Amino acid sequence: MVPIVGATSLLAQASSDTRSIPVDSPAFSLVVHGGSGTITRATVTPELEAQYRSAIERALLAGHAVLHAGGSSTDAVVAAIRVFEDDPLFNAGKGAVFTSEGKNELDASIMDGKTHMAGAVSGVTTAKNPIVVARAVMDKSKHVMLASAGADAFVKAQKLEQVDPSYFFTQHRWDQLQSAQKREMVELDFDGKTENSYAQAPQSWEIDHKYGTVGAVALDRDGNLAAGTSTGGLTNKLYGRVGDSPVIGAGTYADNATVAISCTGTGEFFMRGLVAYDVAARMKYSKLSVSDAVDQTIQTELTDKNGRGGLIALDAKGNIKFGFNTEGMYRGYIQNDGKPVAMVYRD
Amino acid sequence: MVPIVGATSLLAQASSDTRSIPVDSPAFSLVVHGGSGTITRATVTPELEAQYRSAIERALLAGHAVLHAGGSSTDAVVAAIRVFEDDPLFNAGKGAVFTSEGKNELDASIMDGKTHMAGAVSGVTTAKNPIVVARAVMDKSKHVMLASAGADAFVKAQKLEQVDPSYFFTQHRWDQLQSAQKREMVELDFDGKTENSYAQAPQSWEIDHKYGTVGAVALDRDGNLAAGTSTGGLTNKLYGRVGDSPVIGAGTYADNATVAISCTGTGEFFMRGLVAYDVAARMKYSKLSVSDAVDQTIQTELTDKNGRGGLIALDAKGNIKFGFNTEGMYRGYIQNDGKPVAMVYRD
Repeated sequence: MVPIVGATSLLAQASSDTRSIPVDSPAFSLVVHGGSGTITRATVTPELEAQYRSAIERALLAGHAVLHAGGSSTDAVVAAIRVFEDDPLFNAGKGAVFTSEGKNELDASIMDGKTHMAGAVSGVTTAKNPIVVARAVMDKSKHVMLASAGADAFVKAQKLEQVDPSYFFTQHRWDQLQSAQKREMVELDFDGKTENSYAQAPQSWEIDHKYGTVGAVALDRDGNLAAGTSTGGLTNKLYGRVGDSPVIGAGTYADNATVAISCTGTGEFFMRGLVAYDVAARMKYSKLSVSDAVDQTIQTELTDKNGRGGLIALDAKGNIKFGFNTEGMYRGYIQNDGKPVAMVYRD
Repeated sequence: MVPIVGATSLLAQASSDTRSIPVDSPAFSLVVHGGSGTITRATVTPELEAQYRSAIERALLAGHAVLHAGGSSTDAVVAAIRVFEDDPLFNAGKGAVFTSEGKNELDASIMDGKTHMAGAVSGVTTAKNPIVVARAVMDKSKHVMLASAGADAFVKAQKLEQVDPSYFFTQHRWDQLQSAQKREMVELDFDGKTENSYAQAPQSWEIDHKYGTVGAVALDRDGNLAAGTSTGGLTNKLYGRVGDSPVIGAGTYADNATVAISCTGTGEFFMRGLVAYDVAARMKYSKLSVSDAVDQTIQTELTDKNGRGGLIALDAKGNIKFGFNTEGMYRGYIQNDGKPVAMVYRD
């Protein structure tokens, strides 16, 4: 019996969805997200909701096929994230948001819970699938993180699939950029304000303009965990801003002894709070369950500090936890039985 | 009475230098490092040792002047690191190592333990003092990390002190690059090897070719902690490699409730182990002293995994701890009495 705590957030603790779901043994499991934010029945049309649910299910099935065949959690994470990166609905790969200069600069990271090896790219512009590049950094280089032009040079040297930057163009992201620039978004505003700047910003800009960061965490038949995250970052981003998604310990973390985590939200809060690693540390040093650890981290590192977002967590026994303090989160899970479960709203 | 544990490493636990040093109250303190590595009496000439000791003392006195006058720990960290950045002895600012393309790409980060705000730059090429840029990212932007060309654009926009990239040239670093390229250093070698690659590399290359990362941690009269780190990264580095120094939680961390940390060593190990934050997490969740937390982190995240390097730690009560598993570390501390203490070797 694997307990699953679904759709919980501290702001909605009373409506937590706590179920026990029987699974075959040995358990394997895959959990994904496609971003959190102001996702309510009032803001999402039924047609759009159906598209998101379909994409989540396809990502889950792609990862499940790997796990079912005895593949590694790392391979499953890559397979699931590739589905999101190839889908223009999400802010990752095709469909990524535009920088202030009208470009797409992509970030991704991956970590293997068995070896603690990790790979990440920031500001890559020519790789069709940034998660594949992050994985190559982990497997084929001595480094953890490659950035900007250097990351593109690595893509070429490793003969990974390259695309013309125009591949990433989507009209709706372009329109978002025009709208953001018209409003002179706070990205342009280096004004010395601190944490509250996010709270003072136009309603939900900070999260809605990076809607759709994607991630996956998996547990394979051998009991190994892995985690990965991919994003286009913030609409209208300036100055080579690096967010949490490519930072190991902030947006992504995996450790067989504790948990695999992928985050989405206002990246700076996740970076300062080391949110992904903080969940693992609470499990490792305070001996908390994954559910309690996630609740505490979301409370202290996000909610108390006015950060917004969420994360997916999966421990080595197959316990799944969703934690977020936003109205909703595109997310889902799949276990041995191969039935994908997609969720959108808090309830 | 403030206990100070100096010059310790797990490899040299027996020779730990544990002293109690009386200090005035309220205590304030500054601890600095200028890199760790194969630093022994056989490899360092008396002349060179004297130069290092002098630089460490100057950095300590610069920071002490700030603290003595009632300035903030953040200001003291910046003042101390600027001394190192301006000194060609260290791999930070002037004196930074060269990339594979013969350029100097600089990384720095800073964190304020009171607010948990943080700033970092990676791959900046035109700023005289990268630590000043990191501080401006913290104070003047909404972001935590800016990279590459974007970081240079920020330097210009903020009117921070710019220099021609030729300012960073030093003959000894240039010679190091030539020597590294002649030996076809492993930086060029994307061969899929994993952790042991470092161990298999030419003796000590990994640490000796980033000798001289610098850092500082401070406690001010108001009881606020801060930490900062600055580096030129690895000699002959390729592909926009980002190390641990600009990554909050990996190379730098500060939190008034626990500890301020600055690291130096084989950066990838510090990134995967979140070494700086791991010390804080052990104090926060396992209720360890700073001394025990540092020993455990160095043991599990570095020594057990064949990583090499060290860190400086300072807790909110003024307890100082040096932790490293290398032969030596350029380091020192200063307290209320204003007497700088510089150390080089393990004993």
